[in-house]
Amino acid sequence: MASTTKTDENNPSVTEVDHESDEAAAMERVFSNTEVPSWRNQITFRAIITSFILSIVFNFIVCKLNLTTGIIPSLNVAAGLLGFFILKTWTTLLNKFGLLKHPFTRQENTVIQTCVVASSGIAFSSGTASYLLGMSSMVASQLETGNTPINVKKLSPGWMIGYLFVVSFVGLFSIVPLRRMMIMKLKLTYPSGTATAYLINSFHTPKGAKLAKRQVSVLFKSFSFSFVWAFFQWFFAAGDDCGFASFPTFGLKAYAQRFYFDFSSTYVGVGMICPYMVNISLLIGAIMSWGIMWPLIEAKKGIWYSADLSASSLHGIQGYRVFLAVATMLGDGLFHVVYMAIMMLFTIIKTGSKKVESLPQDENRSQLTFDEQKRNEYFTKDQISTFTALGGYITLAIISIFIIPNFIFPQIKWYHMLVAYIIAPILAFCNAYGCGLTDWSLASNYGKLAILIFSGWAGMGHGGIIAGLAACGVMMNIVSTASDLMQDFKTGYLTLSSPRSMFFSQVIGTAMGCVMSPLVFWFFYRAYSVGDPDGSYPAPYGALYRGIAVLGVEGLGALPHNCLKLSIWFFVGAILVNLLTVVLKRYEKRFGVYRFIPSPMCMAIPFYLGAYFAIDMCIGSLILFVWEMKNKKAAKELAPAVASGMICGDSLWGIPAAVLAMAGVKAPICMKFLSASVNKRVDGFLGS
Amino acid sequence: MASTTKTDENNPSVTEVDHESDEAAAMERVFSNTEVPSWRNQITFRAIITSFILSIVFNFIVCKLNLTTGIIPSLNVAAGLLGFFILKTWTTLLNKFGLLKHPFTRQENTVIQTCVVASSGIAFSSGTASYLLGMSSMVASQLETGNTPINVKKLSPGWMIGYLFVVSFVGLFSIVPLRRMMIMKLKLTYPSGTATAYLINSFHTPKGAKLAKRQVSVLFKSFSFSFVWAFFQWFFAAGDDCGFASFPTFGLKAYAQRFYFDFSSTYVGVGMICPYMVNISLLIGAIMSWGIMWPLIEAKKGIWYSADLSASSLHGIQGYRVFLAVATMLGDGLFHVVYMAIMMLFTIIKTGSKKVESLPQDENRSQLTFDEQKRNEYFTKDQISTFTALGGYITLAIISIFIIPNFIFPQIKWYHMLVAYIIAPILAFCNAYGCGLTDWSLASNYGKLAILIFSGWAGMGHGGIIAGLAACGVMMNIVSTASDLMQDFKTGYLTLSSPRSMFFSQVIGTAMGCVMSPLVFWFFYRAYSVGDPDGSYPAPYGALYRGIAVLGVEGLGALPHNCLKLSIWFFVGAILVNLLTVVLKRYEKRFGVYRFIPSPMCMAIPFYLGAYFAIDMCIGSLILFVWEMKNKKAAKELAPAVASGMICGDSLWGIPAAVLAMAGVKAPICMKFLSASVNKRVDGFLGS
Repeated sequence: MASTTKTDENNPSVTEVDHESDEAAAMERVFSNTEVPSWRNQITFRAIITSFILSIVFNFIVCKLNLTTGIIPSLNVAAGLLGFFILKTWTTLLNKFGLLKHPFTRQENTVIQTCVVASSGIAFSSGTASYLLGMSSMVASQLETGNTPINVKKLSPGWMIGYLFVVSFVGLFSIVPLRRMMIMKLKLTYPSGTATAYLINSFHTPKGAKLAKRQVSVLFKSFSFSFVWAFFQWFFAAGDDCGFASFPTFGLKAYAQRFYFDFSSTYVGVGMICPYMVNISLLIGAIMSWGIMWPLIEAKKGIWYSADLSASSLHGIQGYRVFLAVATMLGDGLFHVVYMAIMMLFTIIKTGSKKVESLPQDENRSQLTFDEQKRNEYFTKDQISTFTALGGYITLAIISIFIIPNFIFPQIKWYHMLVAYIIAPILAFCNAYGCGLTDWSLASNYGKLAILIFSGWAGMGHGGIIAGLAACGVMMNIVSTASDLMQDFKTGYLTLSSPRSMFFSQVIGTAMGCVMSPLVFWFFYRAYSVGDPDGSYPAPYGALYRGIAVLGVEGLGALPHNCLKLSIWFFVGAILVNLLTVVLKRYEKRFGVYRFIPSPMCMAIPFYLGAYFAIDMCIGSLILFVWEMKNKKAAKELAPAVASGMICGDSLWGIPAAVLAMAGVKAPICMKFLSASVNKRVDGFLGS
Repeated sequence: MASTTKTDENNPSVTEVDHESDEAAAMERVFSNTEVPSWRNQITFRAIITSFILSIVFNFIVCKLNLTTGIIPSLNVAAGLLGFFILKTWTTLLNKFGLLKHPFTRQENTVIQTCVVASSGIAFSSGTASYLLGMSSMVASQLETGNTPINVKKLSPGWMIGYLFVVSFVGLFSIVPLRRMMIMKLKLTYPSGTATAYLINSFHTPKGAKLAKRQVSVLFKSFSFSFVWAFFQWFFAAGDDCGFASFPTFGLKAYAQRFYFDFSSTYVGVGMICPYMVNISLLIGAIMSWGIMWPLIEAKKGIWYSADLSASSLHGIQGYRVFLAVATMLGDGLFHVVYMAIMMLFTIIKTGSKKVESLPQDENRSQLTFDEQKRNEYFTKDQISTFTALGGYITLAIISIFIIPNFIFPQIKWYHMLVAYIIAPILAFCNAYGCGLTDWSLASNYGKLAILIFSGWAGMGHGGIIAGLAACGVMMNIVSTASDLMQDFKTGYLTLSSPRSMFFSQVIGTAMGCVMSPLVFWFFYRAYSVGDPDGSYPAPYGALYRGIAVLGVEGLGALPHNCLKLSIWFFVGAILVNLLTVVLKRYEKRFGVYRFIPSPMCMAIPFYLGAYFAIDMCIGSLILFVWEMKNKKAAKELAPAVASGMICGDSLWGIPAAVLAMAGVKAPICMKFLSASVNKRVDGFLGS
């Protein structure tokens, strides 16, 4: 599975696709002497073991990212590299002792990639940091409104695994029948899927293997560096506001407004992978909100909102933060949903009308015939019948409709679920289609819409918040796994992997994810106060998603003074900015001004969190920029590997750190930052 | 003037001399078309202006280094590079506008180099951080013994400048008449002088200019980096034990024993310039003393010394630190003085006996005839008559003998001074000779011996401490400037610069140094509590030199329990280690084991200061080592420039920092390091 950047930002994944033009024509000729194994032999035991190991790693990484900022970069390159590295080492070893029976094929590599990214995809769509966390009493207590027993559910890995199992597989069946139309007929691009396929294809040619070796080497170097760095940082973080993560890089005043560099190599790495504009949008959003708006609003304390409220009350400044972010995200999301729908209609109409005049084009295509023929041949060889797909969907939907209201969330009713399962395939198709065109998965937006609809429908008194959040999970999982699967079909198509092996490896990966994701989350949840806005794991989407549900059940009346007005402005603003981008993209081609318009979705994230991670990410951008200045080729080839290493190393330190935290081992030193005057007082206190 | 590494460690300068063999033969042919200007035209106005600017810079650097650890690396490369850069830029600019009258010659470059290093040499031999500082009441109060009015002198720039003027020029005349014997006849190597000459020669060939450009570029990069880094660090150092300079890198326990990395780019740079063995010796010394000995001695608190003493009392643990360091340094120094004398005698006897059979050798030499002929021609062209030299020495000595006892230090008598001026030329010759052979200047050792002799002679009641320290200045200045001048003659010889221009540029440089050095020192002295062992400018040699004087007047009885016994062991140990090195160097040539024997002088410095700067310097070594592994050529060519940039940038921040400190501007933030338990108490205190 080739996943898009798995965030709420809807931004396109970064792995680029520009090999296509110059390499595609020759690709399958290079492999013409290589046998393609049958689909059963593509899913080998060693591939599954490798996937399992990598799944654990990536689940930790994704979970940690989820719980800190919710921004998750495309980990495809890392997964691809590490998968290749592990199996290549293993097969090379076996070969040395003469024990190798089957060579390592690119189909096998595709299977690993699919399986790993499927399972870490679940780590995101399982909502352990968004809709499920939003049900917890920790988050509920921050929002006050709706903090009633019926609107709170105690988290526990048991029911979470069960819930995920009944909602996560349905999506796989939803649009399987449409794969030939979308891949072969409409020839949708699926940029991430295509990029992954080219990565895998290139690994398995001699030249590619050499590059892969270099990439693996830099990945391990940056991995070790960031692991050791994270380890070193740990020693200095004996308490709250201690250590490098609270380093007031730009002074204490800036720190109070959450402008600082927190020395997290994870987010520097993430910044290196994300497009420049994403990082700059984050920074702009941070400056706009924490630099300008919040100080202005705080100056109205006592006028716009009561001065007696706690800092985290949604009726105070925190309310502005949450609801302005929610409004912007909803505006952005709504725009994209509508825009995709329009785009899809246009393309279908255009393709339909082109059918008649498509013959001359086919002549052009005949140049690619060899590749296409081969790919079409293998793509249509193993089938998944429409009957299986439909049957699977209906069966799983029924099971889900039965289990969820009866055993997990009594707040949601069977008819809510039924409606969700009727709308879902349509939205899944929309999303898979849009994703094929632009690489943007809007799964989380559909999820947010579901919250609004179903929480309002169920009502506060009947646990509307939980119902909305649960429905969000249903919707998000279907929509997200469906588009992921279609991406994988594209990857499989380009690597001559069987659709069947893709389907099953995604099933396996999903199953792994359903078990691992809640367990890994639980690991963090027990060790830290997850969801505490001032802790090290603020998990911003927990409060944001719950905020949407509160909006759904309460209406807009509960917002603090002027918050509604501002929210509407931001909602409309997000739509207008997106509209402007689209218009410019279409009509202003000379300077490409549209490239310099920030993304509202990205700008909204720091509304809640502050600037620190945006600064990390901009530093990542800066590093990449300088590197590209110095050596474009090396930067392009190695930067994703370096970034992956930084992310993996830092995130993996999370495991021993969590173990230490659970065992009650505290860091020995506090690196504290005091203003000169406070320092004097402290010195006086310590001296006496 | 090409100066050796200006420290008490006696270690050879690092700029290497291995070009000699492969390039020397051709050098003067390359320049055969270039006219050599007359000696008056070598000392141009622009050269003096450039020297003046660079002198200020280097005086600040040397002063700062002096006041922190007293270890000063060879700054020749930086001086050479920057001098070349400034004049080259200037002449290129003039040339562009058609205003250039005289091209930039290598003789001019040599003049700048000589002048700059002469003036920064005074910054070292002026003793503002050693013998003069040792007279101050701040240092006197630390040592208790001898803290009487007659043994203390209040520092003030006025008398310091006067004192330096009357003692610093004498040395220049002392051994001038011997230059032809030492340079042309004995062909002494003077490694630093030779290296500098080759550097300058290479700058003025087209290929060399290109390399110089690259070196200048990396120098400025590392300069900017270290300046900005020092600036950034400043913000976090609001109080004592705040900021990066007190970063407990290896934990709080190690920090308490002064084992930590203090993030000083100066000493990382110094470490990159100093030989590996110097840095390792420092580290070994630190581990031996702060890691093992001091904790063991502190365990005897109350038995070996009274438990009621203040931490800085010389009768307590501080006494062991100071006197063991002094003993080791004296042992090492004594060994080298005796060894040099023996070596010198041997060589003179050998050369004398060779005279008879020297004809066959001359045949060999005739290969080098072209270079040698040219050099000899220019070296003998402008003369300084023996009459001038002798007259100069005697006149200046009389002035000095008259002024110092009458106007500056009444504690020292005219007959003390007379004796000093009679012995000095002999020691100056010994030192210049030894320096020519090994690049080690032993000036500070002769100075220490002078302290012992003259302080004992004058006696405590008559201000023996001040008398000893003042005599140290007389001795050190003569010995040091004499050997520096001879180094410069060597450089001048190899760059066809006139001995007269060398002499006068050294006179100019010395005059600059005599004015600048006390003023720059005063700048720091007013801004910081210089000499405070726990402050940021501990200036260790202040207490160490005064300690020697105390020994001289008091004898050995005043030492704490067992300190004398240990001191004798260390004194003998230092001699034995040196003896071992010499023996191994001569008789064990297969593995070169002698290279792995640490230098006792280097080991003694951390006895007093702790390990932090040794760790900085070892990190510098590590960087150099890795760089050499990766790209030996680049490391060799660029590492000295990078290191110089790091030293210059960090040290130059010292100027604005001192200005801020004097203006009473405190840093806004304290980065404090607290143990977890103390942190809890502080949080409680701040919370309440």
